[in-house]
Amino acid sequence: MLRAPTDRDSHAGLIGATYQKGIDVKPLDQLCINTIRVLSAEAVQKANSGHPGMPMGAAAVAYVLWTRFLKHNPLNPTWADRDRFILSAGHGSMLLYSLLHLTGYDLSLDELRDFRQWGSRTAGHPEYGLTPGVEVTSGPLGQGLAHAVGMAMAERYLATEFNRPGHEIIDHFTYALVGDGDLMEGISQEAISLAGHLKLGKLIYLFDDNRITIEGDTALVTSDDTLARFQACGWDVQAVDGEDVEALTEAIERARQNLGQPSLIAARTHIGYGSPNKQDDCGVHGAPLGEQELRATKEALGLPAEPPFHIAEEVTSHMREAADQGAAREAEWQERFEAYEAAFPAESARWQEWQSGALPEGWETELWAADPGADPIATRSASGKAINALVPALGNLVGGSADLNGSNSVVIKGAGRFAPESFDGPNIYYGIREHVMGAATNGMVLHGGLRAFCATFMVFSDYLRPAIRLAALMETPSVFVFTHDSIGLGEDGPTHQPVEHLPALRAIPGLRVIRPADARETLEAWWAALHQHGPTALILSRQKLAPLPREGADESVPRGARGAYIVTEASGASPRLILIGTGSEVHPCLSASALLEEQGVATRVVSMPSWELFEQQSEAYRESVLPQKHAAILAVEAAIPLGWERYTGRRGAVIGMESFGASAPAGELFERFGFSPAAIVKRAQSILNS
Amino acid sequence: MLRAPTDRDSHAGLIGATYQKGIDVKPLDQLCINTIRVLSAEAVQKANSGHPGMPMGAAAVAYVLWTRFLKHNPLNPTWADRDRFILSAGHGSMLLYSLLHLTGYDLSLDELRDFRQWGSRTAGHPEYGLTPGVEVTSGPLGQGLAHAVGMAMAERYLATEFNRPGHEIIDHFTYALVGDGDLMEGISQEAISLAGHLKLGKLIYLFDDNRITIEGDTALVTSDDTLARFQACGWDVQAVDGEDVEALTEAIERARQNLGQPSLIAARTHIGYGSPNKQDDCGVHGAPLGEQELRATKEALGLPAEPPFHIAEEVTSHMREAADQGAAREAEWQERFEAYEAAFPAESARWQEWQSGALPEGWETELWAADPGADPIATRSASGKAINALVPALGNLVGGSADLNGSNSVVIKGAGRFAPESFDGPNIYYGIREHVMGAATNGMVLHGGLRAFCATFMVFSDYLRPAIRLAALMETPSVFVFTHDSIGLGEDGPTHQPVEHLPALRAIPGLRVIRPADARETLEAWWAALHQHGPTALILSRQKLAPLPREGADESVPRGARGAYIVTEASGASPRLILIGTGSEVHPCLSASALLEEQGVATRVVSMPSWELFEQQSEAYRESVLPQKHAAILAVEAAIPLGWERYTGRRGAVIGMESFGASAPAGELFERFGFSPAAIVKRAQSILNS
Repeated sequence: MLRAPTDRDSHAGLIGATYQKGIDVKPLDQLCINTIRVLSAEAVQKANSGHPGMPMGAAAVAYVLWTRFLKHNPLNPTWADRDRFILSAGHGSMLLYSLLHLTGYDLSLDELRDFRQWGSRTAGHPEYGLTPGVEVTSGPLGQGLAHAVGMAMAERYLATEFNRPGHEIIDHFTYALVGDGDLMEGISQEAISLAGHLKLGKLIYLFDDNRITIEGDTALVTSDDTLARFQACGWDVQAVDGEDVEALTEAIERARQNLGQPSLIAARTHIGYGSPNKQDDCGVHGAPLGEQELRATKEALGLPAEPPFHIAEEVTSHMREAADQGAAREAEWQERFEAYEAAFPAESARWQEWQSGALPEGWETELWAADPGADPIATRSASGKAINALVPALGNLVGGSADLNGSNSVVIKGAGRFAPESFDGPNIYYGIREHVMGAATNGMVLHGGLRAFCATFMVFSDYLRPAIRLAALMETPSVFVFTHDSIGLGEDGPTHQPVEHLPALRAIPGLRVIRPADARETLEAWWAALHQHGPTALILSRQKLAPLPREGADESVPRGARGAYIVTEASGASPRLILIGTGSEVHPCLSASALLEEQGVATRVVSMPSWELFEQQSEAYRESVLPQKHAAILAVEAAIPLGWERYTGRRGAVIGMESFGASAPAGELFERFGFSPAAIVKRAQSILNS
Repeated sequence: MLRAPTDRDSHAGLIGATYQKGIDVKPLDQLCINTIRVLSAEAVQKANSGHPGMPMGAAAVAYVLWTRFLKHNPLNPTWADRDRFILSAGHGSMLLYSLLHLTGYDLSLDELRDFRQWGSRTAGHPEYGLTPGVEVTSGPLGQGLAHAVGMAMAERYLATEFNRPGHEIIDHFTYALVGDGDLMEGISQEAISLAGHLKLGKLIYLFDDNRITIEGDTALVTSDDTLARFQACGWDVQAVDGEDVEALTEAIERARQNLGQPSLIAARTHIGYGSPNKQDDCGVHGAPLGEQELRATKEALGLPAEPPFHIAEEVTSHMREAADQGAAREAEWQERFEAYEAAFPAESARWQEWQSGALPEGWETELWAADPGADPIATRSASGKAINALVPALGNLVGGSADLNGSNSVVIKGAGRFAPESFDGPNIYYGIREHVMGAATNGMVLHGGLRAFCATFMVFSDYLRPAIRLAALMETPSVFVFTHDSIGLGEDGPTHQPVEHLPALRAIPGLRVIRPADARETLEAWWAALHQHGPTALILSRQKLAPLPREGADESVPRGARGAYIVTEASGASPRLILIGTGSEVHPCLSASALLEEQGVATRVVSMPSWELFEQQSEAYRESVLPQKHAAILAVEAAIPLGWERYTGRRGAVIGMESFGASAPAGELFERFGFSPAAIVKRAQSILNS
């Protein structure tokens, strides 16, 4: 059933309680909605910065959802079975902050007054971890709705894993409020297509269909039939008037009933609703109303001009019912969970373990046992072994690839597929949709209960970079598996050979980048990824790599997880030269060092899988590996050599890629681009002689 | 009219000339098509690397297009009015190389035998500039079809600009052969939506609908109704059997007739068509058939087993007709052009100028005149002045933004909008579609006749990064305008504040990154962007910046275009300290230097808008600006300080961002994150004392 949206101009000129023609909204509901509008506009005005239009336009939509449907407990924002609400149109942050404050979250009116100020918890865009009740950091358009897909995926996976007949301990909806901008971004298509394919029936998008972008009418830039587009991807669609509280209620109810398809509700809204002179105008998108227009808006909406940030008593008491209701719902769930605990003690213990995020006792044992020993294997293969070794201990590890499960070595063997309707296996098939893959991975982790990874060729890390950035910003422990990490990819050529990606990933603050040189280092990389905070990018080879020497290695310490360590010491333990390699380039460094030692050059070889891990070590350790004086340092890495000078110093040098790669067999490429042992020796000699 | 695709299994078991049930293909056509198949499979086999499945499956589709429709001249691949053919599914490169060879392009059979080898012109994926007839470097999925949108946009813009009744000097189609993977990528939605909105009736996608991805049946990962999805975005759609030469002909003809809408032709194909054991199997996507299966395939397709790379005489003579036809068509066009020249001498002179890509005499005059002098203005505003100053001289400059035309200051004043159907203005409104914006910008430049730029907030450079990479790889002179370049963006907070983007862009080989510090440097940045080779990223401030001192500056040289220069010299011209700043951070460096000079520290201030431009200077010049010895060097830049050590050395230091930013007014952020003059002075003192 499609309901026609109302004509864009049908409301013009009539504002306040009598604004809607033929729409009957109860006075208390209208007062609450208008309070959200004015509160939002007022905070923007006080900050003299922000986006009043969206909160004013979508206030009724959000109000209906939050007061009539959203299952949440403002006093415990981390309740596992809460509905997830994601403000994908994150520039409308004041809408969310108003709702959080009004429904009783720990976000005071003073915080709203401090909107967009240093140290406040009301940042310009919603920030996960900063503000209670914010599920995802949003604002970069399209990200929120894509992260929401991951949350809905996590819910279904956990439900399949844990729920038992009569015992539904995980059973919630995921709602995202999305705007025109979200839906124009390419990532939205990946999200819609994946969600439709997976039949995520508990995912509901509320589309703030205000038909205005920053530049004007959306008709300037798009002619899409949005409902038809969603239908083509398997979604249930409805269109309603965004002011019609009862129609919105009915639409959300209907969407919730349809568990076989994700749902889109296009709510025809009016940006800046209530502003006599700015409603439906793009000028209200991203600038304060101005004091005068704010006053006029309050008047039009029937709210008192003074004092600012005024909230009527009846609004507070009505909206705060959410807190009592939430507490009661959580208590009811707690009872349900206790019954589950009694009936399914093993499952409930597992649930608790998964939810806690803690690593179970002895989780590393199998990991270390996965070391293939003397056999040369690609680090991507070693990563596959690591994943499969981890699964027995970490049953909540899920992940997959963007159509490269095999090439990326991420298949969890003997386990099922995360398939539509069944959701009963950890192997996710994302299709050729890297961007939503990254966002969904974050979303699953943020949901709680799961650990998640995703994989593609390293060169395509660019396709999900905005999602990696968000993982870093949110400090989400997502694991990004990037294989085929250099010209070692070979014949596919420069379009598929990463060269700038290593430095570009290292540039992201808070992202741990690890490029192991052998199987053992790969296991250690996974170890670091799982037991440290925040996201990790694993940079893995296509080609086989021999195990590094381990003579004299302290086996009690995962040496690779220290970021850099001495693989082979110089003769006399007094290096004249230090060769630093990462990943596959450690191997020609070892060969070169043997040649140099023959020539009497005392040469140390350092493997440096991770700058970030190395920087965490003590100064004494760092000095012991890379002494600041005495030795010349040559770094070797088949990537753009950006930033290596911090380790090599001005006296040192870097052998890196100075251009894009080329299409040819890998061995020839390493030779041609200067990574042979002979080329390393030559460069080393030239440094030593200079 | 939709024609139902044939059932996926209807052809199984029948191969060769009698393969198609009820499909009548003439023997010569079939022989040509099968030759393309086998030639492609053979090259992959010889390289022992590559993708045979796609060329074998889509051979008939490509054959019909190339022999019956494509307007091109193999002997002059740069003829301005040729149809553009883009192999978006670039992994099928052998399909294109086979076609290029067979139709008479300068690509010998020996080159095909050298597929994917060092130095050959038959790279793993098609590379623009390497191989005649390759219009776009493709392979990263979704890019080709998005670049095709830019080409179709360029064609319409130039047609509007130059064609006159009875004088159609530019009038060609743009075809892209696209695969499942292309259409799953998010960028495809941006492309489809933009092309549909712009009613690019001369853009035709041929969809190689083989229903197989690397991992298996596409049904594993997608349930999209692709035809409905395109229809929802305003496209004309048809579905045909991909072996049915006549049906394909009819469909292409019909698509060409519909000039009011872009067209999708979904051709139901069979990956690895002709291989008795591997057709319709994902194993044939990206691996050689194997000698035995290759032999079986030849047999099944009725081709001789030996010799390899055999091409029947009648195939050569039929396919090479393209060269004669092409020469004739170009000659006919040439005549048409001469008539145009006679009738419209001014227009034809302008056409020649635009096509040549040469900069007209005196083009800089207006640019330098745009310097606002003493008024502090944001560099984004100065960039807007530059664009508007350039337009009178460079009439072929077009561009726009992803819904931020005003914020990015890229509106060409007094000029029209690049609007659907009219296409009569240079101001492009991309909507919130950064990724296709980047690709279309490259596509317009590659088309020839236009200079193009595009713009968004710098933080969203991540959204178009794969297109920027391709511009760098292709050495396309696209200009990427990125404004709001740091925490100076202020209250919108860390989701909108770039910190890692400067180093991440500097990491891309061949991309010129310029971050000017004042209006004059901004003009110089545009100057460098236009008169040098390859792409440029302009990194511009939101906030106003005062003009830098110009005392003693040699006005004959655009000093900013040298990459770095001395803004203020140390007292006695003998610096103890050098402060390097970029963009807005040059200004606190100047204040700090004044304080330091008061304290008796001889301090030079260097503005360094571009590392890449600086590296192009003579060693003597570089040494004169940043002497390797004597002075301590402190760099100041509000970005992750990756790579600065190459200029500061171990004795020096960098003041940069060590984390993401925060939501607060810009002035406060610069203070809090350590960019005040006082903080710079303090750090300088600590270096000097160490």
